[in-house]
Amino acid sequence: MKVFIVYAHPESKSFNGSFLNATVKHLESRGNEVRVSDLYQENFKAIVDASDFLNHNPEERLQVVTASFLANKEDKLTADVKKAQENLKWADLVVLQFPLWWFSMPAIMKGWVERVFSCGFGYGVGEHSDKRWGDRYGEGMLAGKRAILAITVGGWVSHYSARGINGPIEDLLFPITHGVLNYIGMTAMPSHITYRTDGANEDKFGETTHEWFQKLDTIETANPIPYRKQNFGDYEIPSLELKAGLEKPGQLGFALARQE
Amino acid sequence: MKVFIVYAHPESKSFNGSFLNATVKHLESRGNEVRVSDLYQENFKAIVDASDFLNHNPEERLQVVTASFLANKEDKLTADVKKAQENLKWADLVVLQFPLWWFSMPAIMKGWVERVFSCGFGYGVGEHSDKRWGDRYGEGMLAGKRAILAITVGGWVSHYSARGINGPIEDLLFPITHGVLNYIGMTAMPSHITYRTDGANEDKFGETTHEWFQKLDTIETANPIPYRKQNFGDYEIPSLELKAGLEKPGQLGFALARQE
Repeated sequence: MKVFIVYAHPESKSFNGSFLNATVKHLESRGNEVRVSDLYQENFKAIVDASDFLNHNPEERLQVVTASFLANKEDKLTADVKKAQENLKWADLVVLQFPLWWFSMPAIMKGWVERVFSCGFGYGVGEHSDKRWGDRYGEGMLAGKRAILAITVGGWVSHYSARGINGPIEDLLFPITHGVLNYIGMTAMPSHITYRTDGANEDKFGETTHEWFQKLDTIETANPIPYRKQNFGDYEIPSLELKAGLEKPGQLGFALARQE
Repeated sequence: MKVFIVYAHPESKSFNGSFLNATVKHLESRGNEVRVSDLYQENFKAIVDASDFLNHNPEERLQVVTASFLANKEDKLTADVKKAQENLKWADLVVLQFPLWWFSMPAIMKGWVERVFSCGFGYGVGEHSDKRWGDRYGEGMLAGKRAILAITVGGWVSHYSARGINGPIEDLLFPITHGVLNYIGMTAMPSHITYRTDGANEDKFGETTHEWFQKLDTIETANPIPYRKQNFGDYEIPSLELKAGLEKPGQLGFALARQE
């Protein structure tokens, strides 16, 4: 398969750097094609501004959605963004690899999401009307591709458990797995998480990469996170609220997005 | 009171820009002192890297937590970060104002969080042992100050409701209100949210600012989000799991962090 890894860490001689190198080596040894975008090394521009839209008149008020839509439509996005979009279209599997900082992705990767998923590519795709609210949440330009997060966390697994003080890790990652990956149409797989990375030794590295490689080797047939699709009858339109009675007893909040 | 507003939007002639100006005018008219950090206008550096730590030897491997700790301790953080920390220490109320992009804060503000909340200031504060896991979640350098998010959202309120497709807005914001504001010791207030901002007219602007100003005028005595504190008996230490029986029947996930 074709794998596109988007990677964000400022130090190549880090746990994350070693994890990336081992991942590429493993994937290639199994006959996969791999492309890597190392956002720090590329000095990827992290913020959205008027210079992202080459057909935008800098004298005029910037309306981000409109400017993004017009740049996308008229092929006036910047070269770095177009290259990332090409890599996404090329890939069968997209991996976002990063350390969890303040319970989310590093700013440089957040900026990558904001810039690369332009209007007409990542959002604002398809018919928007009283009957259909766009091609998103299971549909869109990248539908059919699989995507997974590979993250490192400083704290303990219990701190991120069902009763952990930080909140359950699956819920902390929901704005990304559901709000980004599933939103743009990709099939989100359960995240790979390495806890207590600071001070991790070789044994720990060996354990987590062993588990990770097994996931990668079977990812084409493994079960994804069972997120509901938007336009297949589960939601009222245009209110986009889950229809009554579809949830299991006791399900609340983010769990309602899961069809299980 | 002293109010520090951190603001992230690339266009001053936007809904957010007008909202900021109206907020400053209102607060000052009521006798408050106001400081604003306009991250886009300041061209605030959005990414964490080795150059953030002036006593870090660039030849050596960067370990972010260690480098941040040492720079914090030896007064070797950069001038922009030190200025932000001074403003935070000065303030009684901190406002983070931004458009919700991809269900989180814009990258430039995420980078502000990553850089300003250095080790020894925002995290890694106080004793870390088997008995006490740092001064965080209700304690820390900024304890006693109040903080609130003022955000704009493109979608409809129903899309962010209890059964909405995007997930409940309070849960989407939990990594910020709980994981940043409460983590560093501040008292998080219920967020102010303006929906369907794109194409909003003057009536809508008047309505939301009217409601916002009322919140600001009463914020010193209003009820905060009732997040539990870490070190006052509710959590097992060091597993940091909520002790059995403290939750209400049916409470799960992020709701367990609320004492109600």
